[in-house]
Amino acid sequence: MCKGVGGLRILVLGADGYLGWPTALHLSRRGHDVGVVDNFCRRGYDYEMGVDSLVPIAHLQRRVRVWEEVSGKSLATYVGDLTDHLFVDRIVKEFSPEAIVHFAEQRSAPYSMIDRAHCVYTQVNNVVGTLNVLYAIAEHDPSIHLVKLGTMGEYGTPNIDIEEGFIEITHKGRTDVMPYPKQPGSYYHLSKVHDSHNIAFACRIWGLRSTDLNQGVVYGQETDETTMHPDLATRFDYDAVFGTVLNRFCVQAVVGHPLTVYGKGGQTRGMLDIRDTLACIELALLHPAGEGEFRVFNQFTESFSVLQMAEMVADAYPGKTVTDHVTDPRVEKEEHYYRAAHTKLLDLGLVPHLLEPATIQSLLAVVGQHRARVDLTAITPTVQWRKTASAARAPMAASAPEAAGG
Amino acid sequence: MCKGVGGLRILVLGADGYLGWPTALHLSRRGHDVGVVDNFCRRGYDYEMGVDSLVPIAHLQRRVRVWEEVSGKSLATYVGDLTDHLFVDRIVKEFSPEAIVHFAEQRSAPYSMIDRAHCVYTQVNNVVGTLNVLYAIAEHDPSIHLVKLGTMGEYGTPNIDIEEGFIEITHKGRTDVMPYPKQPGSYYHLSKVHDSHNIAFACRIWGLRSTDLNQGVVYGQETDETTMHPDLATRFDYDAVFGTVLNRFCVQAVVGHPLTVYGKGGQTRGMLDIRDTLACIELALLHPAGEGEFRVFNQFTESFSVLQMAEMVADAYPGKTVTDHVTDPRVEKEEHYYRAAHTKLLDLGLVPHLLEPATIQSLLAVVGQHRARVDLTAITPTVQWRKTASAARAPMAASAPEAAGG
Repeated sequence: MCKGVGGLRILVLGADGYLGWPTALHLSRRGHDVGVVDNFCRRGYDYEMGVDSLVPIAHLQRRVRVWEEVSGKSLATYVGDLTDHLFVDRIVKEFSPEAIVHFAEQRSAPYSMIDRAHCVYTQVNNVVGTLNVLYAIAEHDPSIHLVKLGTMGEYGTPNIDIEEGFIEITHKGRTDVMPYPKQPGSYYHLSKVHDSHNIAFACRIWGLRSTDLNQGVVYGQETDETTMHPDLATRFDYDAVFGTVLNRFCVQAVVGHPLTVYGKGGQTRGMLDIRDTLACIELALLHPAGEGEFRVFNQFTESFSVLQMAEMVADAYPGKTVTDHVTDPRVEKEEHYYRAAHTKLLDLGLVPHLLEPATIQSLLAVVGQHRARVDLTAITPTVQWRKTASAARAPMAASAPEAAGG
Repeated sequence: MCKGVGGLRILVLGADGYLGWPTALHLSRRGHDVGVVDNFCRRGYDYEMGVDSLVPIAHLQRRVRVWEEVSGKSLATYVGDLTDHLFVDRIVKEFSPEAIVHFAEQRSAPYSMIDRAHCVYTQVNNVVGTLNVLYAIAEHDPSIHLVKLGTMGEYGTPNIDIEEGFIEITHKGRTDVMPYPKQPGSYYHLSKVHDSHNIAFACRIWGLRSTDLNQGVVYGQETDETTMHPDLATRFDYDAVFGTVLNRFCVQAVVGHPLTVYGKGGQTRGMLDIRDTLACIELALLHPAGEGEFRVFNQFTESFSVLQMAEMVADAYPGKTVTDHVTDPRVEKEEHYYRAAHTKLLDLGLVPHLLEPATIQSLLAVVGQHRARVDLTAITPTVQWRKTASAARAPMAASAPEAAGG
């Protein structure tokens, strides 16, 4: 086995995506020997909906070549689908990793709620892909540490504090530590809950090691590595299906569109900076779960409500902004209790980047630079949780995209 | 809509199986208008493993014809696969049920643990079938009451009392009623946990009505309806993959083989008589869940350890029996706390048939009648939880089956 100096052999699944790509670069620069795996389904979703990353992204093969030029480090590259178990077996055998970082799932809640076909696709793709990874690890080398991306959305918004994966329950005079009850809010979030249950079981019966990272909503687009060359940039999504709320507000501020808050805007979520995602994943890798251990970290640094985020963007943007409340297309509480533990990664040494005006200004600068690519029709939410079938996006503007922005 | 007098229009999914068939007959005799649906995958598993129901069973078409002859009642019959959403849409539209009883899942824990392919098949078959049913209900008529068969095995064996689906948790000074945490013990049991989460969500977003019956291990083979004609008989499974433990002990007692207890035999499970299954399902149907309600009933009447069941069979069997402890092929606690609530069905009026010597004697009589069909090689457990791939069954006897029984 050929090892990086002092580093780990790490296979990153879903390495062409928003977080997978910067994670692969970060781990590579930190001296680990990294392999990258993708089937480009994320780019396919863009084609399906006629949207695009605001920041242009290079093909994976080009990205890998540029990274080798700027860093001198190579990335073993595998193209294939995790629902193809022969492919999964092959890459685990060939690359023989010590750890696998698993981002390779359909990750949009609205996408999973478009209709029956998208719901079934999301659950089958995510659950079967992860089962294939579990079997490949168990059969090839059960000591491989699986670092799996979950989501804080698995917990929902209970009226008690959210703990990190497990909760001690005293009931009728007896006490046990139990998996924290999950109340996810979309078929996508449900797929992650299914995964978590499957992984916990695989750890129990086969002695596998796994860390489930229940990640908050990530913001930010630039990392120390992606800014080394324009062709190393990662995605910036602002559309109603794959975009996240802070990105949407930044785009709306820059093009002079009202910031659209769903419902009352009291929906509170854990958030983190993209650079903290990279740091958390390396911390999890450097401090692996024990044999048979299924470990859960809540991976976020601060909690904000949607309305608070709109206010922060309004404050950070030098021009004038207006906030509009639109009907919430989701079924979720618009005001609720929210307090979630997130100490395990801090205990391992995480030093968070908090959400400051400078961070929002850097996002606004990214948007400003690519303003001509903004298509505002992609922002209109079309996927209604209460319906069984929705259009995946609003009708597209017939004119040039910049016309939509005014 | 054509209604039975005073009855409900009920579609029974998986109506060719061990419980589906007697349920369909029971509901039909009770004056409901019943449709039956199956794709015969259960018979296919027998072919795959070279095993068979101890009691011969007629083809579904023959069963339906005989039922019409003896009862004067017809059963609308649909042959198809729930993972085929066009089929599911069609039957829900055509039959236009007021309630759906959903048994149509791969229901064996060992089968799901044979290897990767059987694991993935089980989870995809069960989860996608149920998703298709949920979408069909939501699209055709959200008032249809879905009575879904789950299992007590979803809970595992926590060190606190098991409640019916939900538990009130007080934590750090706040209180909420949460879904009861699940710790299932096989990829099959996991598929049921995935289903429960998906169904709860569908009730929440679409206002569906559902009752999740977390059923214990069912024993018994004869009901008031199945005994009306030999061709109305339901299955009796004693093999290591689909058989249940009480059946196995009865077969072993009759053929003079030691009763094989897995491990220490302290594994305790909720159990119920097949006649109580039918009663519980009708009670759930007659008292439907409310709009948007996801309701969970623990459907069992008594708890026994494996060793207790061996002792009961030994006591009830007129001849001599020996008990052997064999290595437990599963990963499970062989001694544990077990106390599970099961009051909701009693509150609705269930009068249980408890497990008495007479019940075991009637099972022993069924085995005695079909003793010549016993294949003891089918009883040897081959599926090992700790392995990622097992043979589905032990090598078959080359000689006539009765030779194996001595």
